[in-house]
Amino acid sequence: MSGTTMQAEMAEQPERLAALIDRHDEIAATIAELRPRPLVGTTVVARGSSDHAGVYGRYLIEEASGRPAGMAAPSLQTLYGAQVDFSGYLAIAVSQSGQTPEIVTTLERMQSSGGAGLAITNDGASPLAGAAHVTVALDVGRERAVPATKTVTATLTAFALVAAALGGTPFTREELERVPEWVAQVVDDPGPAERVAAGLIEVTRLLTVGRGLLFGAALEAALKLKETTMISAEGFSGADLRHGPIAIVEHGLPVLAFLAGGPAHADMVELVDDLRGRGADVYVAAPDPGADLPLPAEVPEALAPIVAVVRAQQVALALARARGLDPDAPAGLSKVTAT
Amino acid sequence: MSGTTMQAEMAEQPERLAALIDRHDEIAATIAELRPRPLVGTTVVARGSSDHAGVYGRYLIEEASGRPAGMAAPSLQTLYGAQVDFSGYLAIAVSQSGQTPEIVTTLERMQSSGGAGLAITNDGASPLAGAAHVTVALDVGRERAVPATKTVTATLTAFALVAAALGGTPFTREELERVPEWVAQVVDDPGPAERVAAGLIEVTRLLTVGRGLLFGAALEAALKLKETTMISAEGFSGADLRHGPIAIVEHGLPVLAFLAGGPAHADMVELVDDLRGRGADVYVAAPDPGADLPLPAEVPEALAPIVAVVRAQQVALALARARGLDPDAPAGLSKVTAT
Repeated sequence: MSGTTMQAEMAEQPERLAALIDRHDEIAATIAELRPRPLVGTTVVARGSSDHAGVYGRYLIEEASGRPAGMAAPSLQTLYGAQVDFSGYLAIAVSQSGQTPEIVTTLERMQSSGGAGLAITNDGASPLAGAAHVTVALDVGRERAVPATKTVTATLTAFALVAAALGGTPFTREELERVPEWVAQVVDDPGPAERVAAGLIEVTRLLTVGRGLLFGAALEAALKLKETTMISAEGFSGADLRHGPIAIVEHGLPVLAFLAGGPAHADMVELVDDLRGRGADVYVAAPDPGADLPLPAEVPEALAPIVAVVRAQQVALALARARGLDPDAPAGLSKVTAT
Repeated sequence: MSGTTMQAEMAEQPERLAALIDRHDEIAATIAELRPRPLVGTTVVARGSSDHAGVYGRYLIEEASGRPAGMAAPSLQTLYGAQVDFSGYLAIAVSQSGQTPEIVTTLERMQSSGGAGLAITNDGASPLAGAAHVTVALDVGRERAVPATKTVTATLTAFALVAAALGGTPFTREELERVPEWVAQVVDDPGPAERVAAGLIEVTRLLTVGRGLLFGAALEAALKLKETTMISAEGFSGADLRHGPIAIVEHGLPVLAFLAGGPAHADMVELVDDLRGRGADVYVAAPDPGADLPLPAEVPEALAPIVAVVRAQQVALALARARGLDPDAPAGLSKVTAT
């Protein structure tokens, strides 16, 4: 198989993440200076893969800051002109390109009504970085393939760093520093994803599921598969799946399930059993050498989303190739979305 | 066609919503007494259809209260034991049955850490109502069909009433009082939905899309179709759809698009054109007598989700029947979800 840009950018991830994690203290100082005192809440504004990283980040930040964190509804700012007071809020706007006008406008409005604005973007010279009070630039190098890979794992990592700057996290600094090593283990082991992709060649629809800290990874896995393989892949939290959507599970429907120990594990194990009982073909990503998509055994649940997303990238890449599609330039997509 | 419980419960909606809207002043007084002063934010905890009503409600409440409103991540409370200070927050927990343990536990924890707790539930004697500081009981009568219908439109209406109690809304009281009449117009006109359903008989996957105030209606339409017809239906905001998932749109893929005038309209019209240009079969619900699923001409955008959801119920019911499925008891679902 010839190399693709997407594959090359995936291979850069260990080194790029290591460089970002090395900036731990600098980022901690930036956030310490920016954070409102008292902080009353955090809101994250993003779309697509950046939004999925934000879904992961909001769990970590709510726990670390001890105040509610959630995802914004950007159209309230960009379309409806709502007058909303963001004093006391940390407003985090995420865009890999830093070019999406909707994200820039929303952050500007949140800042002008009292919010403390943080941009997370790959391009420290982008309009988003220019608008924000402060920026955490991912600096992972330009991403040329349309499916975002290294910018996504870097954004997930940036959220882990921001949470660590705000308070206690369910991972240690030593564990965070091992993320590049764990990502390298996955990058160097594409075989499991190729085997999973081989089972999905004829598939038109699929579910992904994760719970709690892994929910964002499930959402991102679904998007990556949609973008690169045109499968109707929908991502769910385990709890949401049980509230109705599980009705569509029938014999042979494929499900990618993300497990990583921790408090959500027992519930996910039960869900996987239930799905198998309904006849679903469940592929499991878990820190277990016998899993369909093994994750490194020592990765804690709170950092597992970063390596789980790399597994999803590998499945998307392998399946696109198996289907004869160009993963670097999916039909009908461009790199920057102008909404 | 013989009558189903789902159909009978759909037919009750005008009368049930009228009774709820008649309690406008009582609900306003309840909320006025409950609301923190100052209010710093609102968080909504719900799953499934109740969550989709909450997605609608969070737009109205953020605008009315002038402070950020968002959706909670319940597992932070139920699984991770996060210590989060909810002082100054209005915490709204929604469950039609009032029985879901996860929702009850989350509200209890939010209240014990400072939140002002409001339950929205059909059953004023349920565990959720018992746990909440105050309750808005929907009182629409027991719902027996598994696909929620009258409880969903009542929950949407309850959010409109709560928003009106918190501040300015993009609809007037006179318009709100006309909702039962508009819902009756839709209920009495099942033909358009039957024609749309006839076009979907062989379909296995479908997208629904709405933007801003209509986003929740698009999510609910997708869930209703999943539950009753086993179609892989995924709901999107128009902006999110453009950020990647639009890649799966190909010749003949059906899309249900919800439009209702207002600030989001131009963007949605452009998206519908784009989708048609990509070969999608787009069915439009809009306040236009020529639309595939006409909504009453005078309904303002901010109340259109209530009637749009009724259109989605009709499509789900008609398609379940056309496929020989029992809409009242979809395979593998029960009425109360115990997560």
